[in-house]
Amino acid sequence: MADQDAQSPVGIDPPALPVLRWAEPPEGPALVLLDQTRLPAEEAELVCSDVPALVRAIRTLAVRGAPLLGIAGAYGVALAAARGEDVASAAEVLERARPTAVNLGYGVRRAERAYREAVGKGADPERAAAVALAEARALHREDAEASGHMARHGLALLDELLPGGEGHRLLTHCNTGALVSGGEGTAFAVVLAAHRGRRLRQLWVDETRPLLQGARLTAYEAARNGMPYSLLTDNAAGSLFAAGEVDAVLIGADRIAADGAVANKVGSYPLAVLAKYHHVPFIVVAPTTTVDLDTGDGASIIVEQRPGAEVTELTSPRAGVAGEDAVGLPVAPVGTAAYNPAFDVTPPELITAIVTEEGAVSPVTGVGLAELCARSSQVTIS
Amino acid sequence: MADQDAQSPVGIDPPALPVLRWAEPPEGPALVLLDQTRLPAEEAELVCSDVPALVRAIRTLAVRGAPLLGIAGAYGVALAAARGEDVASAAEVLERARPTAVNLGYGVRRAERAYREAVGKGADPERAAAVALAEARALHREDAEASGHMARHGLALLDELLPGGEGHRLLTHCNTGALVSGGEGTAFAVVLAAHRGRRLRQLWVDETRPLLQGARLTAYEAARNGMPYSLLTDNAAGSLFAAGEVDAVLIGADRIAADGAVANKVGSYPLAVLAKYHHVPFIVVAPTTTVDLDTGDGASIIVEQRPGAEVTELTSPRAGVAGEDAVGLPVAPVGTAAYNPAFDVTPPELITAIVTEEGAVSPVTGVGLAELCARSSQVTIS
Repeated sequence: MADQDAQSPVGIDPPALPVLRWAEPPEGPALVLLDQTRLPAEEAELVCSDVPALVRAIRTLAVRGAPLLGIAGAYGVALAAARGEDVASAAEVLERARPTAVNLGYGVRRAERAYREAVGKGADPERAAAVALAEARALHREDAEASGHMARHGLALLDELLPGGEGHRLLTHCNTGALVSGGEGTAFAVVLAAHRGRRLRQLWVDETRPLLQGARLTAYEAARNGMPYSLLTDNAAGSLFAAGEVDAVLIGADRIAADGAVANKVGSYPLAVLAKYHHVPFIVVAPTTTVDLDTGDGASIIVEQRPGAEVTELTSPRAGVAGEDAVGLPVAPVGTAAYNPAFDVTPPELITAIVTEEGAVSPVTGVGLAELCARSSQVTIS
Repeated sequence: MADQDAQSPVGIDPPALPVLRWAEPPEGPALVLLDQTRLPAEEAELVCSDVPALVRAIRTLAVRGAPLLGIAGAYGVALAAARGEDVASAAEVLERARPTAVNLGYGVRRAERAYREAVGKGADPERAAAVALAEARALHREDAEASGHMARHGLALLDELLPGGEGHRLLTHCNTGALVSGGEGTAFAVVLAAHRGRRLRQLWVDETRPLLQGARLTAYEAARNGMPYSLLTDNAAGSLFAAGEVDAVLIGADRIAADGAVANKVGSYPLAVLAKYHHVPFIVVAPTTTVDLDTGDGASIIVEQRPGAEVTELTSPRAGVAGEDAVGLPVAPVGTAAYNPAFDVTPPELITAIVTEEGAVSPVTGVGLAELCARSSQVTIS
């Protein structure tokens, strides 16, 4: 698909949602986060003035979402440097805050390396701190730009797949917007581009059990952007497909294997099967950094099994989604075992297209995916 | 399918679960219910000593499930008669307690007619009350017997479809056991028969959003019967199918159209599509009274849309599932609209078999279904 950046009505401006911002003195130095554990009940800022405060915010999911964690980690290194602290040990602590988030380590290491190289070239601590902060800002900006590119490519694909009509009726699962990104997200960024282009007729939001990221976060982002949207239980999506109310499904990805199999939030695969049965396009939107060429196929992706209590108990949003201090109300009998995979895997044959910042691959093939990744690596500092 | 009653290890004994019982003096006359709003946290009896108390129990869903409501209604008429009250007006009040429950009206009218006919033949009030009670007991017994027949036919079908192996791994949705029936239920009764026959390897229990009847009630019945079971979010079923962990799906039905289309709890249709895609049998278990020959096809079935608050708020089980006094915790932004159909419709081509007390129809055709209903009407007093 051709690059349509120039024609797109969607800019790469910073998002309106104050998900994460760097504060200079006198307010700072600090990283100021939108506390996601308090959404949608409250839009509260969480000021992290030192690394331990940021580590707590990461652990309690006040800040979450793989790309955003990378950005937060990079700023965390800049924060340690600005405070004149030991940057190497701060980086180590930050990287360990959530060991499964690959992007966190990437962001932390990138800012730490920039700092170290500056020091190696004779920069004083203040100058080296400025270099680390510049690197965090660069990562932040690159991620926002990737969102913008994905939004443009995704909307162009939608318009191509769904010509004419009264606007797109899109169904999404989990949360893939500004709350997980330095920009406007992945799948949700495409929805937002359609909305801004007056081509979004309806957004169907899966609540996304067990942690309700759809109900709590995607509905919040949809409402904030003034979109026409409705929330539904995940199992009600079938009725929408049967009634012909879904024109396309858009989801994000947590990991994409070399053959194009996509691991994403549990519930994505049933949507792919429903979409196939109803001849509805099923579109995955993710940056090329989500493609893991070392994982050959879907069967090789290890799916995290999460605690059964997420299913056997209901958690109040005020107590923090999956936060360590969350208090659950039991709904199932005591001792009930639960099967609770965090993700499922959709094979490439059920995916209409994978949209990245470098363009879309459709049909989904390993060769097509590898080409996009190669194009990306030519411009990305790794 | 041949009647295999004689060979079945499953009896038609009253269920062990004290869902509903008639109490004679001095405890009664009363109808004693298991208060389903307090499950699974507590197994509490609710004693209804008069008709207003029973009407309250029906309205607050302390007693629920179409067949069980019919039985409760019949006993309610017997209760009014035993108390020497105006039976006709009691019947009217009972029938109106939940206008959508067809079986409630059926049970009430049946007991009331028996009472009226006894009076017409010169019986004194005490004798006529005994006749009404006998009619309620007969309905109770017939429903238990229908459960037993469905269990036998269903298990025979399972054994035929799934020969050999290490036992059946069955997936079910919503609650279809003793809590909705005078006997052991519909789909759950088949699961129980497999369990008693040592042919149940695993029961996968869909939590069944939004009202969590799977988590609250089916898990409770499974635990009570010592079954091997696991609870899952509805959207995790896809992963189980993909992993080859589901041998068959068994569900109940709320209404079956003349062509074999089945309206059942929302989430049934996506399971049918997944089952088809994975070549897994999808079996509906329901008495012939659930077949509505006046409704021609699935498109003619009117699907109840329920309040959005069931989706936008989480309800504690202690507050009563869908009970009028339930207090919800908001999870979505204020003002979020929800799409919340109570049921969905599965077309006959996705259903492997419909199992009734008269036997199974497979493949599902209107002619086959009509034959079973005709066989049933030869023996049923309508």
